[in-house]
Amino acid sequence: MKETFPELRQEPCTKRWVIISPRRARRPHEFQKEEEKSSLPEWEASCPFCPGNEDQTPPEVFSRWGENGWLIRVVPNKFPALSSDFNEVEIRGTDPFVSVPGVGVHEVVIESPKHNLTWGNMGKEQMEQIIDCFLSRYRLLREDKRLKYICIFRNHGEKAGTSLIHPHSQIIATPIVPEQLRNEIEEARRYYDDRLRCAFCDVSKREAEFKERVVLESQHFIAFTPFASRMPFEIWILPKRHNASFDLMYDEEAKDLADVIEKVFGALLKGLDDPHYNVVFHSAPLRDSCEDYYHWHIEILPRITIQAGFELGTGIYINTTPPEEAAAKLRQFL
Amino acid sequence: MKETFPELRQEPCTKRWVIISPRRARRPHEFQKEEEKSSLPEWEASCPFCPGNEDQTPPEVFSRWGENGWLIRVVPNKFPALSSDFNEVEIRGTDPFVSVPGVGVHEVVIESPKHNLTWGNMGKEQMEQIIDCFLSRYRLLREDKRLKYICIFRNHGEKAGTSLIHPHSQIIATPIVPEQLRNEIEEARRYYDDRLRCAFCDVSKREAEFKERVVLESQHFIAFTPFASRMPFEIWILPKRHNASFDLMYDEEAKDLADVIEKVFGALLKGLDDPHYNVVFHSAPLRDSCEDYYHWHIEILPRITIQAGFELGTGIYINTTPPEEAAAKLRQFL
Repeated sequence: MKETFPELRQEPCTKRWVIISPRRARRPHEFQKEEEKSSLPEWEASCPFCPGNEDQTPPEVFSRWGENGWLIRVVPNKFPALSSDFNEVEIRGTDPFVSVPGVGVHEVVIESPKHNLTWGNMGKEQMEQIIDCFLSRYRLLREDKRLKYICIFRNHGEKAGTSLIHPHSQIIATPIVPEQLRNEIEEARRYYDDRLRCAFCDVSKREAEFKERVVLESQHFIAFTPFASRMPFEIWILPKRHNASFDLMYDEEAKDLADVIEKVFGALLKGLDDPHYNVVFHSAPLRDSCEDYYHWHIEILPRITIQAGFELGTGIYINTTPPEEAAAKLRQFL
Repeated sequence: MKETFPELRQEPCTKRWVIISPRRARRPHEFQKEEEKSSLPEWEASCPFCPGNEDQTPPEVFSRWGENGWLIRVVPNKFPALSSDFNEVEIRGTDPFVSVPGVGVHEVVIESPKHNLTWGNMGKEQMEQIIDCFLSRYRLLREDKRLKYICIFRNHGEKAGTSLIHPHSQIIATPIVPEQLRNEIEEARRYYDDRLRCAFCDVSKREAEFKERVVLESQHFIAFTPFASRMPFEIWILPKRHNASFDLMYDEEAKDLADVIEKVFGALLKGLDDPHYNVVFHSAPLRDSCEDYYHWHIEILPRITIQAGFELGTGIYINTTPPEEAAAKLRQFL
């Protein structure tokens, strides 16, 4: 049999190349075992996000309450990357150096009163609260005309850049459209102009036919390990209905999404022993219509391996786990 | 005084936005102290790159010798990301999924016989050997018509993705032009088309005038912390003479570069207590001429902070150290 690896693969939507090189996984330091995780308490006195410590965060901007207290809270980030104090977004600087004041919003979604839960073991109902909260914030923030893009993301574990264990996500809204999004949308437009079809719709249909990279399919969503996965166990969750913007989701879809997330992250939790990861929601810019050719989705990026100089300098990731293997493994833990 | 931070800055050559947000550095986990570095031995019996263990690497493809043995060796990577075994670069796969065999070259430059040296304390002469070696390999590899791009890079420290302590760099040659380079070159072309001047030439001239971000200026090179630095203490080294391709450097420039590298990395070593970092050489693709508007250079990316979900999902880095502060600090350690 002809050996097929290493192989260079191109992601059809973004045109990003990756190297799938499973033999490299034999390197001595790859996939080091994490130290044994100690069992965490449900409540931690020193945690600023635990109930009773609400005065340690800035005043909340959103909350939902149950019989025994709050279920979910949103607070401004105490150390914000961007600030809503600035009034104007005006270009400054001396050519060729251009800057604008760091206008924007940086919020923390405290996802549960319980210190020791995470996506995959919170239960479907709590996950529904979280999606509902993301939608509320997104719909409110988009009204601020200074903001051009909203990024919802989640850092889980130290290697993914988190500083706090208590389950939380973040929302950053920026006064510019990120270059990476511009590129992604530009490529999607080219694909559409050639075929009058959405690249993401095409990809998810082909993935559903091929099946080997599908982790899970529900009524409204498909979760798969992309053909050109940048990292071992990278997963994308795509809505089946073509829709460019996250906040245009239907209620029925939001409920289904909560269920899909709970299952997919449950598989990561069990199958990979709670890996560190980043989650990023990709959605259309707020004031650039791209409704026919862009498709909102969620990208899950496990931080099992380290991006080194080659990745940083070229944008080409070297991935030691073929996505077909990753999906097969995850399916065992659904 | 009006507070200027946080600020969004755009890198003039690449049009990449970053957020400079110094107040965020107060977060508890930023800039954690590294554990005390133990003093390493000059020779380590178990190191595959130390003299006497030459049989633990694949046979060398390049070496230079001094009176007491080899000074520098290049060997194929034992766990290559790409392989030169494939004969043809032919597209395969079913639409929309495209792949090509992983044709390419992956070499390791063992930079010194001494186990415990690194850039910044090897001395200028050894650094000259290294630059000379990079040039030799680059000039040889570019003859292989299957190869379209050559990336020289160096990973220093665990957080930068290295698996071995012994001083070494790597060379990966790919059968495609990396998307990140394509974007960089495309932006440089737009800049040129508007002004008939190279963006990188303009930036380095302005940096030399402003001085506040300059780390070091020599006869042929300028080292500065870029206006829109993505990471704390990011440094670029640019040749003053406009030149798109690394291998078209003159001998005199190569000698000067060795000296500049030794000084700049010496400042990093002393000023930041040997931080983990990646170094990447950016140079023109081998078979796409862009000689008027591209400009080869070296990017140094210290891995002091962690890229989290926002960075991975948007491409916008949040940098807690203004480059003006970084340059001022580094200048103290020259």
